[in-house]
Amino acid sequence: MLIYLAGPDVFLPDAAEIGRRKQAICARHGMTGLYPLDNAFDAAAPQLSLSIFRSNEAMMLKAQAIVANLTPFRGPSADAGTVYELGFMAGHGKLCLGYSNDPLPYPKRVAARGAVSARDGVLRDAHGHVVEDFGLADNLMIAHALDLHGCALVTPQHAPDDLWQDLAAFEDCVRLAAARLLPTQASR
Amino acid sequence: MLIYLAGPDVFLPDAAEIGRRKQAICARHGMTGLYPLDNAFDAAAPQLSLSIFRSNEAMMLKAQAIVANLTPFRGPSADAGTVYELGFMAGHGKLCLGYSNDPLPYPKRVAARGAVSARDGVLRDAHGHVVEDFGLADNLMIAHALDLHGCALVTPQHAPDDLWQDLAAFEDCVRLAAARLLPTQASR
Repeated sequence: MLIYLAGPDVFLPDAAEIGRRKQAICARHGMTGLYPLDNAFDAAAPQLSLSIFRSNEAMMLKAQAIVANLTPFRGPSADAGTVYELGFMAGHGKLCLGYSNDPLPYPKRVAARGAVSARDGVLRDAHGHVVEDFGLADNLMIAHALDLHGCALVTPQHAPDDLWQDLAAFEDCVRLAAARLLPTQASR
Repeated sequence: MLIYLAGPDVFLPDAAEIGRRKQAICARHGMTGLYPLDNAFDAAAPQLSLSIFRSNEAMMLKAQAIVANLTPFRGPSADAGTVYELGFMAGHGKLCLGYSNDPLPYPKRVAARGAVSARDGVLRDAHGHVVEDFGLADNLMIAHALDLHGCALVTPQHAPDDLWQDLAAFEDCVRLAAARLLPTQASR
């Protein structure tokens, strides 16, 4: 069974190593992790970004599930490219799993990055834009996509010391995927 | 023809009015705009967020196209919920259109919100995370999803005075959608 490994991990300084660690975890649970950086490209090729898109899309279509790293990236929400991929996989009826190493509810995430105030029972940010307050970790479309197209968002009770290196929540997702996709054997 | 009107517009102080303006533009081009706020909910209902999710998903499945407001929201990228919906519609093979009233390329968007430095020809943010530098306005998955599943991202040459009230780029998207979905009549 193939799992597409989505996340801003590809932007980390040790992106390749993180990918190998994630693939080793998948293998331990009887699954194969497909990591975007495994596609080989000529960095000088014209339309490199388009080639990357096509390869990622092909990987997603091949996979039976996605495990998305939805830890906040450059803002209070998950990485935009990762969220696109989650939507694409949900649209294709694939099994959707995701984790965030930041367990804070969304209003606290927004407040950590700027003023949030309550008026008439509604939270608003410094621009006067409404801040969703449903007790969810991110936009409701992301949280409930996981609920209805896979498994609920996995978060640790407390954020680990290193949001990007800790793979315990990732492994929980792989375990859940294995339990759903490998019904004839117990997940290890 | 039904267009799903995705965007963080629903979080604006005048969210309902923006929706009406967008629907009027759709009507002028022979299309019907489906706006998430048109779904009626009991604000005190348990699991309100899940009801909203289900209604939005049902609207998307009914629509032939999505026009996504991909103007940066709470960070350098588009609103996470909107991006999820773009992916979901792409996954369902629907026509995908989007606009950003901020025309800046992604590295400039990131730099406007924190330090970006170049090392060994690679841009990195203050956390050392790679900043995509392909001349695109947002993550490549978003930009090329539009290229390959619809029409290229629509941006104005210069950002309008009010990023959230100006609907010229939105109307360009509706015009493009009408040209693709209403082949027997010229778009007005």
